[in-house]
Amino acid sequence: MSTDVSLEIAEAVESQLRELTRGVVELHVAAELKDRLAKSLSTGRPLRVKAGFDPTAPDLHLGHTVLLTKMAQFQRLGHTAIFLVGDYTAMIGDPTGKSVTRPPLSREQVLANTETYKAQVWKLLDPAKTEVRFNSEWLSKLNFADILQLASRYSASRIFERRDFKERIAAGGEVAMNETLYPLMQGYDSVALECDVELGGTDQLFNLLVGRDLQRRYGQPPQIVMTTPLLEGTDGVEKMSKSLGNYIGIAQPADEQFGKLMSIPDGLMWKYYELLSFRSAPEIDALKAGHPMEAKKALGVELVSRYHGAEAGAAARAKFESTFSRGEWPADAAKAELVLEGAALFLIDALVAPGIALAKSKGEARRLIEGGGVRVDGVKIADVKHALGRGTFRVQAGKRGFAEVTVK
Amino acid sequence: MSTDVSLEIAEAVESQLRELTRGVVELHVAAELKDRLAKSLSTGRPLRVKAGFDPTAPDLHLGHTVLLTKMAQFQRLGHTAIFLVGDYTAMIGDPTGKSVTRPPLSREQVLANTETYKAQVWKLLDPAKTEVRFNSEWLSKLNFADILQLASRYSASRIFERRDFKERIAAGGEVAMNETLYPLMQGYDSVALECDVELGGTDQLFNLLVGRDLQRRYGQPPQIVMTTPLLEGTDGVEKMSKSLGNYIGIAQPADEQFGKLMSIPDGLMWKYYELLSFRSAPEIDALKAGHPMEAKKALGVELVSRYHGAEAGAAARAKFESTFSRGEWPADAAKAELVLEGAALFLIDALVAPGIALAKSKGEARRLIEGGGVRVDGVKIADVKHALGRGTFRVQAGKRGFAEVTVK
Repeated sequence: MSTDVSLEIAEAVESQLRELTRGVVELHVAAELKDRLAKSLSTGRPLRVKAGFDPTAPDLHLGHTVLLTKMAQFQRLGHTAIFLVGDYTAMIGDPTGKSVTRPPLSREQVLANTETYKAQVWKLLDPAKTEVRFNSEWLSKLNFADILQLASRYSASRIFERRDFKERIAAGGEVAMNETLYPLMQGYDSVALECDVELGGTDQLFNLLVGRDLQRRYGQPPQIVMTTPLLEGTDGVEKMSKSLGNYIGIAQPADEQFGKLMSIPDGLMWKYYELLSFRSAPEIDALKAGHPMEAKKALGVELVSRYHGAEAGAAARAKFESTFSRGEWPADAAKAELVLEGAALFLIDALVAPGIALAKSKGEARRLIEGGGVRVDGVKIADVKHALGRGTFRVQAGKRGFAEVTVK
Repeated sequence: MSTDVSLEIAEAVESQLRELTRGVVELHVAAELKDRLAKSLSTGRPLRVKAGFDPTAPDLHLGHTVLLTKMAQFQRLGHTAIFLVGDYTAMIGDPTGKSVTRPPLSREQVLANTETYKAQVWKLLDPAKTEVRFNSEWLSKLNFADILQLASRYSASRIFERRDFKERIAAGGEVAMNETLYPLMQGYDSVALECDVELGGTDQLFNLLVGRDLQRRYGQPPQIVMTTPLLEGTDGVEKMSKSLGNYIGIAQPADEQFGKLMSIPDGLMWKYYELLSFRSAPEIDALKAGHPMEAKKALGVELVSRYHGAEAGAAARAKFESTFSRGEWPADAAKAELVLEGAALFLIDALVAPGIALAKSKGEARRLIEGGGVRVDGVKIADVKHALGRGTFRVQAGKRGFAEVTVK
């Protein structure tokens, strides 16, 4: 290999490393990822990058897409994304029968749920370049002797170091033996798939590291482990969640997504860029040098286009601009400041607040919202649980009610 | 059922209970055993009594027969003895590959070893009334889902309460995950066999109790657990063991067995009666009222007859009596007292001790023993590692050397 080629590869490694480690919470270990990327680039063999998913029927919001975005980044750099469906445990359910949240699923349910999942995931991942695998493929073939072989490769004392186990026992609770086997199953998935990288949420760190250790014990290079953070919701305070009303669903209408994105605080916008955008770090730096409103619109266009197509992205921006940039807002609209006391302020409470009074009672406010008569920053909000975070919002109720609400 | 029959059963229960609990170290729990015996006697359904054995090729001594004697007691009272061969784990061996003592065995080796075992065991148990089972029958059929089901029925925290695990971890060592599964396997054997009783050594108590708990979780009546003690060797101090030279092998010649039994201290004799004899407690009480020498001879006849047949038992007694009771011992034989310093005194050291001097050097003593020229209490001892415990022994070396050795 000539020095020029080496140099080129070294630069490509640095560039990939910068994008791939962006926003990551934990990385075990950076030096190995660098070596593995260099080897991949010089041999042309893509890295195998796994993330595991429960075959529940999901309704994804942007918070769920942080992990998928990271997978997609790997994929866009030429690596192999492995969408691993944890069907085997799902088909077992909770053997104690104690948990109602984990009833066993039939093969048919697992497949149907996987299709629901994939329909959403293909908005981010390229189906042609994604390996979809089911762990029943190898786990269902293990007999007791195989499982003892597997179990012999991991220390029971270390399993007990898992934080939730320790906490439960400290609180006088019990850990059943089957629970201690799940990390081994997940780890064995990495062995069976010969993964180079495994991605997961921060709550998965222990299990991901078990996979790393098991691969070593099976004579494989240990996988690199990366965890991605939780995403704050539109209020900029709590983690994005449906029950808090601060979420942006990937199946929500384009205008609603765009309007919600326009409503987030600037600081949160840059975090969304870091975790959700496919723009490179230098591109984002360029945006930071410009006007925040422009950057926010660009983010809105990128994300709405991802979920509804480029045309819908452009249209959402145009509609937003026509509403807010062309002076359709009455000059004499009420202005009021509200103090945020909890994590977020419910829109329904803002509507009846003194100085705003867009509704006479919470009952009326509810009817207005449910009837589709309320807009926040031009976006119709029909969710009575919708919450406002800190920031300034233009709230419109019916044809004649206008108020600019600043939440402090 | 008439009162007479009830009374008869109640008496039979008491009688069985007395014999079956004789010499037992731990019993979980006595009240349940009593109920289970009563039910068995009134329904005619025998209890299922399991003990597990590793399919190693054994060379049994009396120490090993304590457990088998207890099984035989159950069998002689009409219950079903289950000789469980732990072939499944034996065929796996030690999956860590760390232990040279547990290499995996082939199916053929397991079967050959089981035959060796059975040939010895049938001296105690009635083959026609014994179930010989192999745990591969059910364990090899379990898949991962089955094992998770099994594991969900036991607490991981309790597994860690096993003393050897705790001690190892306290000493900075590790427990591998597979080790935590072995107690579940052994316990599951009891579920598969629907055992009423499981017998084992005191070191097995934890595992036996796991079986008890698992049966409860599988909706079966929990097995009664009984542990049998270790047997002291002929020295009356250390546990019987080949390496200490204080053992009586069940394959050793009749005269040697008889002679060794005659050499044990009286106190130990009663312990041997308790743990090894099929005589009932009242019969033993009657022997205690007589002369100890007579009781010892009766024990010798019982045990030699067990391993060599009734004729050999009678002949061994006759030979012993002809040697020792007819005055063939010279009146002027040397007498010496030796002080026991360790656990036992080696015969080879006694031969050269001052006041005895049956050999001029240890080399000569060794040659005398190996050449078959040494007898202790009339029994030829060809084992250079033979040890004497406390007591008085008549030692003869060659044609002319006689000494009465008292070890204090």
